[in-house]
Amino acid sequence: MTRAELVQLIKDRKSYLCVGLDTDPEKIPAHLQGEEDPMFSFNKAIIDATKDLCVSYKINTAFYESQGWKGWQTMEKTVSYIGKEHFLIADAKRGDIGNTSSQYAKAFFEQLPFDSITVAPYMGHDSVKPFLAYPGKWAIVLGLTSNSGAADFELQPMGASERHAVGDAGRQIGAEKLYERVLRTVSSWGKTDNLMFVAGATQSDEFLHIRQIIPDHFLLVPGVGAQGGSLEEISRKAMNAETGILVNVSRGIIYASAGKDFDTAARKEALAYQQEMATYLRG
Amino acid sequence: MTRAELVQLIKDRKSYLCVGLDTDPEKIPAHLQGEEDPMFSFNKAIIDATKDLCVSYKINTAFYESQGWKGWQTMEKTVSYIGKEHFLIADAKRGDIGNTSSQYAKAFFEQLPFDSITVAPYMGHDSVKPFLAYPGKWAIVLGLTSNSGAADFELQPMGASERHAVGDAGRQIGAEKLYERVLRTVSSWGKTDNLMFVAGATQSDEFLHIRQIIPDHFLLVPGVGAQGGSLEEISRKAMNAETGILVNVSRGIIYASAGKDFDTAARKEALAYQQEMATYLRG
Repeated sequence: MTRAELVQLIKDRKSYLCVGLDTDPEKIPAHLQGEEDPMFSFNKAIIDATKDLCVSYKINTAFYESQGWKGWQTMEKTVSYIGKEHFLIADAKRGDIGNTSSQYAKAFFEQLPFDSITVAPYMGHDSVKPFLAYPGKWAIVLGLTSNSGAADFELQPMGASERHAVGDAGRQIGAEKLYERVLRTVSSWGKTDNLMFVAGATQSDEFLHIRQIIPDHFLLVPGVGAQGGSLEEISRKAMNAETGILVNVSRGIIYASAGKDFDTAARKEALAYQQEMATYLRG
Repeated sequence: MTRAELVQLIKDRKSYLCVGLDTDPEKIPAHLQGEEDPMFSFNKAIIDATKDLCVSYKINTAFYESQGWKGWQTMEKTVSYIGKEHFLIADAKRGDIGNTSSQYAKAFFEQLPFDSITVAPYMGHDSVKPFLAYPGKWAIVLGLTSNSGAADFELQPMGASERHAVGDAGRQIGAEKLYERVLRTVSSWGKTDNLMFVAGATQSDEFLHIRQIIPDHFLLVPGVGAQGGSLEEISRKAMNAETGILVNVSRGIIYASAGKDFDTAARKEALAYQQEMATYLRG
């Protein structure tokens, strides 16, 4: 999916919601447990209930891999069921030496029809670039993640030899943090139509700095909902002229109810997010 | 597999060789292409030809994922065929927020019987710790990788506020590099019997510093062979009292011949590595 197509979807649906299919077999309602493929039955119902309210679905590959090859098959069926009217994200956090990243790109862009894959930047340029070689496909590189572990490395200051004054009046001029270095460096490897970054909603203090470094890139923003981030705050701080954000909610939507009404409960939550998003899109 | 069991295997086989099963369907010899599962047939022959010469097999998950669910099935069959007499590494470079890393741990330690998995450190403690919660299982965290992209972030100096004098006479006291920070920080999260680090053989200039930070941990060393690292040099610089290194060779062994003799050619290469290793183990 091209950037223009994604921007159009956001306009058409008045939504920048991404629904995260972190489907945990242990959390699937009891009445589906007898189905041939309970994870797929669950996903189908969630997709049917939310597809007009969101522009993207994010498959968290870990939850499928933990079921072995049958889980991988469920992922394939789910992606096929979603179809072409949503921006498909493989939340896989891959990244390896060049010949291996090329195989991951093949797995998620050729064997599976994902539009994008999340990529870890630690190993540098040759681990990221193979994902940028497919027209209409995207690498979504980890910038500043939503978890507490972000403080261990991502938020640590880098060395003086590469000091980079960010020039924000509200912030002391000083050492660039690792995540800022990642945004600045990785953004030079691709373009705004094949590269996005992950920026966690729980890190809202950093969003203005993020937008100084990468004003035009799309951000994939997890951390709203179960992790505590504010949709209002990150929308205000991170949106750009072409919206520029996809906000993911996983648990807050797909596990809104543990009962037979899980799909209608999921729709209710997704609708609340979409309606709130519509108010920010008006501005 | 416990550390004591791994150390015993190394003594018994006079080898610290890990054979990397980066099995590329396009490189499988023609005479196997008609088999029901050519990747598995290839792997079986490689395993049969090398199992007495190595102590470990490393499955590069990317090559299996690129074949979809059938590839995942091939991975399962391969791991099962290897059995319990080798240290099994899932070279998967995983790492995500806590609840997701737990699912990856379930995938590779419960659903599949791997002894270890390679883990990317970028997201910090909660992305790594779920892999340390299984007795007898290991996280192998990326320290300094073998690829050219290591220069982009891993080798960059960290900030002054956390300067850490490494105290090596042969090295200027100064800013700690990102990979050194990773080794120092991550090593505090686990023990030498559930945590290893990746250190690329192409980075031999850094091995003495690595051993100053983590003298006792096992290192998984890729980059010998196709990537150009020297077995002699990294063995001299990185071995410790319990050997402390596993040296991986993938392409240099499994693609030693593209013909019908691929398995005997692989054995010849593996034997040369094992015999060279035996001379370093004598010391």
